Amino acid sequence: MSRWEPNARGRLEQAALDLYLEHGFEQTTVAEIARRAGLTERTFFRHFADKREVLFSNSLQELLVSTIAGASDSAAPIAAVTTALEAAGALLQQRRELSQRRQAVIAANAGLQERELIKLASLASAMAEALRDRGVRDPAASLTAEVGIAVFKIAFERWINDPDQPDLAQLVRKSLDELKVVTAQA
Amino acid sequence: MSRWEPNARGRLEQAALDLYLEHGFEQTTVAEIARRAGLTERTFFRHFADKREVLFSNSLQELLVSTIAGASDSAAPIAAVTTALEAAGALLQQRRELSQRRQAVIAANAGLQERELIKLASLASAMAEALRDRGVRDPAASLTAEVGIAVFKIAFERWINDPDQPDLAQLVRKSLDELKVVTAQA
Repeated sequence: MSRWEPNARGRLEQAALDLYLEHGFEQTTVAEIARRAGLTERTFFRHFADKREVLFSNSLQELLVSTIAGASDSAAPIAAVTTALEAAGALLQQRRELSQRRQAVIAANAGLQERELIKLASLASAMAEALRDRGVRDPAASLTAEVGIAVFKIAFERWINDPDQPDLAQLVRKSLDELKVVTAQA
Repeated sequence: MSRWEPNARGRLEQAALDLYLEHGFEQTTVAEIARRAGLTERTFFRHFADKREVLFSNSLQELLVSTIAGASDSAAPIAAVTTALEAAGALLQQRRELSQRRQAVIAANAGLQERELIKLASLASAMAEALRDRGVRDPAASLTAEVGIAVFKIAFERWINDPDQPDLAQLVRKSLDELKVVTAQA
């Protein structure tokens, strides 16, 4: 087997999701994932620390943080966060089927649901930090980031559960508009 | 020892927090908590299922749900949620010192921090359900509940970390006002 494997990461991801859905997350081993992907365990561990990391990569966090950092100086905190969440939505939109399968795996396992909540909380912390780096003060930075993640969570659930929904970036924008309506009634 | 112990629950809570702060949550046993409180393990288990439940009771959830259910028919979703969060704030305000010690225990233990996130997520679900019971439709119900919890989390952190802050119910109201300002910039 050559050391360079075309799209090894993607193949491992597909194989892992297949096996998690077929046999359950707990019952699946890294050896089985590698075998299904036609790769070695060694290759698996070049891409992922463990079988849970297949489901929880850092790519979304990096995108959110870099988008907030790159927003124009004049952008309001909520505008920078909105742009970042729309970018995250567009990324996931390209991976809709993968996202749906991932969500089905998570829905079947209480430990993974907890992990997902922790992931969302750390995305909110990372966004708050990125806002503070732009000079936004607290509580505005934390508030905008936490509320942004709350809105994203709702948009994401609608997108995952309803195939008739438009694309995720649009749903993020729509949910933020609904948030404005909701809070204006306070 | 008589079977009726005055304020057994409160004494067990105080003893548990003392020991968690002195020796760490993991290192503390139920036997030690009961001994410190001058009570039996049997009494402990009449009040709590395990040593973690001392930190995560359901009283807040019951208060939030009943306040939303009892809000006037004409109250907008965000108004019902605000009233509920202010009531929760007032309850915690009476227990400020206890809340601060509880938070110090949680901050020292990654597993408890995860548990706290799960608790907050289940509070949001319970509030969304209470709004749906009032006839509020989704996504407005989920959005209002999730955003309400995000705001409460920020207010709570300010209140816990800064002794100069006013009372928690006022901070909840203030954070909701800040949310209106933040979202209006979208």
